[in-house]
Amino acid sequence: MNAIELIKKKREHQKLSTDEIKFLINNYTKGKIPDYQFSALLMAVFLNGMSVDETAALTEAMLYSGTVINLDSIAGAKVDKHSTGGVGDKTSLILAPIVAAAGVNVPMISGRGLGHTGGTLDKLEAIPGFRTDVNLTQYKNIIKKCGAVLAGQTKSIVPADKLMYALRDVTATVESIPLITGSIMSKKLAEGIDGLVLDIKTGSGAFMKELKDAKTLAKSLINTAKAFDKKVIGIITDMNQPLGNNIGNWLEVVESVEALQGKEVPDLMTVTHKLSGAMIYLGGKAASIDEGVEISKEMIKNGKAFDKFLQIVKLQKGDTSVLTNLSKYPKSKYSEEIIATRTGYLKEVDNYEIGMSALQLGAGRLTKDDTIEPKAGIIFNPKIGDRVRKGDVIAKLFTDKKKEIDSVKMRVENALKFSSKNVVKPKLIKTILR
Amino acid sequence: MNAIELIKKKREHQKLSTDEIKFLINNYTKGKIPDYQFSALLMAVFLNGMSVDETAALTEAMLYSGTVINLDSIAGAKVDKHSTGGVGDKTSLILAPIVAAAGVNVPMISGRGLGHTGGTLDKLEAIPGFRTDVNLTQYKNIIKKCGAVLAGQTKSIVPADKLMYALRDVTATVESIPLITGSIMSKKLAEGIDGLVLDIKTGSGAFMKELKDAKTLAKSLINTAKAFDKKVIGIITDMNQPLGNNIGNWLEVVESVEALQGKEVPDLMTVTHKLSGAMIYLGGKAASIDEGVEISKEMIKNGKAFDKFLQIVKLQKGDTSVLTNLSKYPKSKYSEEIIATRTGYLKEVDNYEIGMSALQLGAGRLTKDDTIEPKAGIIFNPKIGDRVRKGDVIAKLFTDKKKEIDSVKMRVENALKFSSKNVVKPKLIKTILR
Repeated sequence: MNAIELIKKKREHQKLSTDEIKFLINNYTKGKIPDYQFSALLMAVFLNGMSVDETAALTEAMLYSGTVINLDSIAGAKVDKHSTGGVGDKTSLILAPIVAAAGVNVPMISGRGLGHTGGTLDKLEAIPGFRTDVNLTQYKNIIKKCGAVLAGQTKSIVPADKLMYALRDVTATVESIPLITGSIMSKKLAEGIDGLVLDIKTGSGAFMKELKDAKTLAKSLINTAKAFDKKVIGIITDMNQPLGNNIGNWLEVVESVEALQGKEVPDLMTVTHKLSGAMIYLGGKAASIDEGVEISKEMIKNGKAFDKFLQIVKLQKGDTSVLTNLSKYPKSKYSEEIIATRTGYLKEVDNYEIGMSALQLGAGRLTKDDTIEPKAGIIFNPKIGDRVRKGDVIAKLFTDKKKEIDSVKMRVENALKFSSKNVVKPKLIKTILR
Repeated sequence: MNAIELIKKKREHQKLSTDEIKFLINNYTKGKIPDYQFSALLMAVFLNGMSVDETAALTEAMLYSGTVINLDSIAGAKVDKHSTGGVGDKTSLILAPIVAAAGVNVPMISGRGLGHTGGTLDKLEAIPGFRTDVNLTQYKNIIKKCGAVLAGQTKSIVPADKLMYALRDVTATVESIPLITGSIMSKKLAEGIDGLVLDIKTGSGAFMKELKDAKTLAKSLINTAKAFDKKVIGIITDMNQPLGNNIGNWLEVVESVEALQGKEVPDLMTVTHKLSGAMIYLGGKAASIDEGVEISKEMIKNGKAFDKFLQIVKLQKGDTSVLTNLSKYPKSKYSEEIIATRTGYLKEVDNYEIGMSALQLGAGRLTKDDTIEPKAGIIFNPKIGDRVRKGDVIAKLFTDKKKEIDSVKMRVENALKFSSKNVVKPKLIKTILR
């Protein structure tokens, strides 16, 4: 077996066997297959695809390139959620404590934000002292103590993914369903889960702009989860506008805390409850997703979810005093409102541009080495279909970078389209796949 | 402009502009685009192809990565021939002196053999003293003096091709029509030619096994030659069996000398005269290919072609005494005959295996660093359609490596299929394209 022959096989639309895929991933991870061969393979996979079996074999080879966590010593079901990423998507912060409060363990390993989408780790680290770099012993202990952990990836988890992602990023081979599937699923399977709820975003702020593509990715992820005997539900949700109103790391913590305390943020909580309901159902604590949703709502109402959140934050060394007194947190140096100049119905949001605007204010990073300003971001008020009146505050920008304000104002304004006629609100939950 | 965006463009089946292709080739040649990005691009080109315009732009960018020879100071037309390579293909050695004797300059830069096919340089260097490493001044002087030069590629000619070929070789991106076209045509255009005759081989001993693929390659080469305002003729010829009888470097020199001295080797001379006829026609010394063929035959008959060959060899420091007295040349340590064990019509030759058998005896190289034994090779007697009788000598092997003889005997025997019924001889000249 040699790399050239296997590249040729994939190039000729032939299926690679499990052993062949293992050979490629293992030797690439060990540095025995050079980048220039692996990138030719990645492009062949990009253009010729991979079957369900090949994708499962890819995921398995990536998974076993590093540590696979075993949580058998912890009683009860372990269920996680993965989102393909969006603008203002803070559901992880709300649903992890909800689901843990409902008696299902949530061993969650998240990533950082890159480009227009935020990352759960960056949001959590906006809380002073919060540590996401927990080791394996701490990871297990925190779950044992409170039923959830919100951790960052360690170097020992799926090292193949780090190498492969870095190469895909510079060789135009990122947007490939089998490669995305391998990357997501290997990391999720390494967490030690029994079940997984997938939040596949679609719309202008998502990686999968078209519903069709989102469904294809969802099916690939579901098939792969099943190949590993994991319970799985895929929920395709709308990402044509920010989820909730707050975009930016601390701003999203604030909105999460408010939601955990019972504040009604309709779109955010519709999606969150559907996801946490599905997790509670997969964890065996509800007979259906709908019953799971009811339990999820109850966990907010009875205060148990917020208590659980404070408990998780405390166990991960975070300062809970800013969460119980949000106004204690430092303020951005500058803030600026965007005011509606005419009356009309909000028709369209270029949500990618909204995400990039928040990034420009300091909330995100263009490259992995950029630093983030936790206070920076946008509160974006109207939802598609809302009637905006002249003089209404459309959005409020928060930043420490004065020189960015004018260009971001224009950028946000350019991202919006209004209509004089009624506009139908987009459906939040597009479809549920299993 | 950046490499990732351009890889993405080709990945998405979009056309690259001339400037974009120039950017990619220039920066790769300068080492500013790393191998791992260029190999992803090569695979995207392999799978998604290139248009006629893109292929011409690729050829141009490769061509101007190095020295482009100008032969304007030399009077008369300059016409070369390029073959896609085969087993026993020694036409260059015969047609270069024929065409030069007919008054058309032949500035020929050739390559070495790799794998199952031989290389003109290796054959010439079987002549003691023959120098193929001529510099630019010598190159021009030799043409001025005798109307032909048989040279090797210098480092200054198309450096992009050396880099690209080495990368294609290890990334399974060799067999791509636009990449092959760029590689061949950039090198041929760098020679300073006005016209080019292409010998596109098809059959079991050729890179293009199928006539359809040979035609596609021929059209791509012809289109590219035309884009550079060069006169061009493409001749698709049979490579289902060795051309002539001798395979191996010195053995092919012997057969070439005999043919130049008037020996009838029907298949070899049919192809050679067609190619040299086309070259004489493109050089303006005949009104048609057929008339060119007649002139070509005349050059053999009147002895001018052989005299010209001796003149070229002398100018390139070769020892002509072994050519006028072939028996002077040292003999292989071992020779062995393969005898027919039954009577039948030769039906099929796995010509790739015949080429590899000669290589195994010492006539070729598997990697660029292998050394060649000039005396080694095979004299292969029957042609497809011939009736072979029990006891006939099918082939004679020549080698210094005793231990290879038994396995090569079996290899050659396994490469042949016989029939008890009449077999139609394959057509030597499949088609002529312009």
